[in-house]
Amino acid sequence: MKALTLCLALILAPPAFADATATGDLGLVIERATGSLVLIDRSDHAALGRIEGLGDLSHASLTYSPDERFAYVFGRDGGLTKVDLLTRSIAARVVQAGNSIGGAISDDGRLVAVSNYEPGGIRVFDADTLAPVADIPTQGKTVGLVDVPGRRFAWAVWETGEVFLGDFSAPTPKITPLGIAGANPFDAVLTDDAHTYLVGLFGEKGVAAFDLWDETAPPRHFLTDYGKTGTDMPVYKMPHLQSWAFTEGQYALPAVGRHEVLWVDRQNQAQTASTPVHGQPVFIIAQPASPFVWVNFATPLNDVVQVIDSRSHAVVATLTPGKAILHMEFAPRGAEVWISARDDDKVLVYDTHRREKIAEVPAAAPSGIFFTARAHQPGL
Amino acid sequence: MKALTLCLALILAPPAFADATATGDLGLVIERATGSLVLIDRSDHAALGRIEGLGDLSHASLTYSPDERFAYVFGRDGGLTKVDLLTRSIAARVVQAGNSIGGAISDDGRLVAVSNYEPGGIRVFDADTLAPVADIPTQGKTVGLVDVPGRRFAWAVWETGEVFLGDFSAPTPKITPLGIAGANPFDAVLTDDAHTYLVGLFGEKGVAAFDLWDETAPPRHFLTDYGKTGTDMPVYKMPHLQSWAFTEGQYALPAVGRHEVLWVDRQNQAQTASTPVHGQPVFIIAQPASPFVWVNFATPLNDVVQVIDSRSHAVVATLTPGKAILHMEFAPRGAEVWISARDDDKVLVYDTHRREKIAEVPAAAPSGIFFTARAHQPGL
Repeated sequence: MKALTLCLALILAPPAFADATATGDLGLVIERATGSLVLIDRSDHAALGRIEGLGDLSHASLTYSPDERFAYVFGRDGGLTKVDLLTRSIAARVVQAGNSIGGAISDDGRLVAVSNYEPGGIRVFDADTLAPVADIPTQGKTVGLVDVPGRRFAWAVWETGEVFLGDFSAPTPKITPLGIAGANPFDAVLTDDAHTYLVGLFGEKGVAAFDLWDETAPPRHFLTDYGKTGTDMPVYKMPHLQSWAFTEGQYALPAVGRHEVLWVDRQNQAQTASTPVHGQPVFIIAQPASPFVWVNFATPLNDVVQVIDSRSHAVVATLTPGKAILHMEFAPRGAEVWISARDDDKVLVYDTHRREKIAEVPAAAPSGIFFTARAHQPGL
Repeated sequence: MKALTLCLALILAPPAFADATATGDLGLVIERATGSLVLIDRSDHAALGRIEGLGDLSHASLTYSPDERFAYVFGRDGGLTKVDLLTRSIAARVVQAGNSIGGAISDDGRLVAVSNYEPGGIRVFDADTLAPVADIPTQGKTVGLVDVPGRRFAWAVWETGEVFLGDFSAPTPKITPLGIAGANPFDAVLTDDAHTYLVGLFGEKGVAAFDLWDETAPPRHFLTDYGKTGTDMPVYKMPHLQSWAFTEGQYALPAVGRHEVLWVDRQNQAQTASTPVHGQPVFIIAQPASPFVWVNFATPLNDVVQVIDSRSHAVVATLTPGKAILHMEFAPRGAEVWISARDDDKVLVYDTHRREKIAEVPAAAPSGIFFTARAHQPGL
């Protein structure tokens, strides 16, 4: 009877993990050297646990299910791993290609697509089971894969410059070629309204803009000064276009190979300004609900973060948070930014209003930081 | 021993409610007549349960904690109720005024502010405990309360036309008057970048725009044709400005008392178009990641929803989902819209791409629908 009483007490008591099971303020940090993830709690500035066995995460990203329970982790080794944030364990894992470079989840959360370098193409999986749903070959490496409303995805091909829109809303996928972006697209990004698919080029100067609301419209090219500079300026790290910041009616773009952030008018694609910065920009990310963008830089100048005001285009702060700053992730309403300092084995939490460090969370060689709020954003 | 075995089985088994505790795709529907809420699961198109005892919800709204666990419900009777989505119960409740009209949560999730008609002013509470933190009197009814980054709130006063910005980041609140919006502000809204606070006027024509990134800038007035029409056009229902849609570089505004949606250029505040519609608009809401806005209407024409393309400003669809359509809430990435049909005692789920009904969820006299994704959006 005593056992039963204890039993009832245990059963009727609030579950011990109840505090952790609301998933709105959780996140994952990629530990790039050890193939593991750290589960973090944004409100508590805390690491809740580690999930291991995810393979090669040396250039990894992830996306979330609409309920913010599952993460889909895209590893460099072609591994696609479904991670359960509630149980803090791997729910499913497939090695679906030899070399992959990111992925996306459909707007309804039903399909996960992976962008492959080797053998190329994109592969689409059932988000519940990771069972294969579609295999779309391409004539080269796919880059810039994004989700598009209506259970669709868009992507570009490095070797051919082609851009495609794939519609997976019916049992048979419908793949529509949208035209040629130019020579060697290296990444792409979707604007926050899912209107424009912007493709950065490495083999020629310029950015190509595709109107996803009018598939018959030809791509427009702009910023034709933009892109690869001469061989005297080696590109230490390809910038990420997923980081392109949209603020004050502008795009803030990383100049490839140059110590510069470029500003482009969103309506007419004219360059409006350029900002000299500390190094070659890698990520340029808008601080939500503010005029500011934050920038980190390629090695060897990667110990600095700069903040730029999008109205004046002036650098308003230069921070030295730590060694080898690889990524930044904002709290969705902008009050904090979490910064990964790989060589310090720490994630640093900054108050964005005072621009001061308020907490540190340990992580082994951290790179990407991903809050669950991404589940609700198109194109991420 | 048998009891102990059963006990261990119960304790060690995966908790039965684990599926429901990821909170990213949950929501609450206000049952206006019965002072209750229905907890809904967006992915499953399901009602999970009912929470009762919230007082007068005849004109209620709510906001969410950053972890998407708690809702703060603002009732018409001055009741502020904290609801726990995990336990599906009331966590705390205070009746803090005689008559209130909405509220907001600070960007860091620490403070909840309530906008009061009787006795006026705003009151600020600790989000954990609902203990009072600050009481800011005004010379009249407060309207248009919104959260502003940096643990701040903005509001307007109906009787005096004053607009205030309150900073609650230090122990002593700092209240800054921003100027006079005009005669009888009836509601206000913050742009998605938290840059501009737009105040709609009832006592004169026009909208006042306050630059929250420059507190010294005087308010600008625009759309001076806008506002109350002659007495020959009674206003059946005050439109909600929180619904103002921002799309394609424009604001889509409800014309007060007229069967019209007005379009204003976001950069220069010039009116660019007007769209004749079925009735007096109440909510105009942008379908995320699309060119479309959806509009519902004041009684007696409230059985219709229209869809307008923000590029052409043309009505592209007219739907008759049910009787007394009071509110619409989009899935955060836009794949679905949930529509409350008060007099059908149902919430209707529409696929936004086919614009067809795909599910129904029962609810008693439903009004506002609120998905937890709102936790991550400034100004809501």
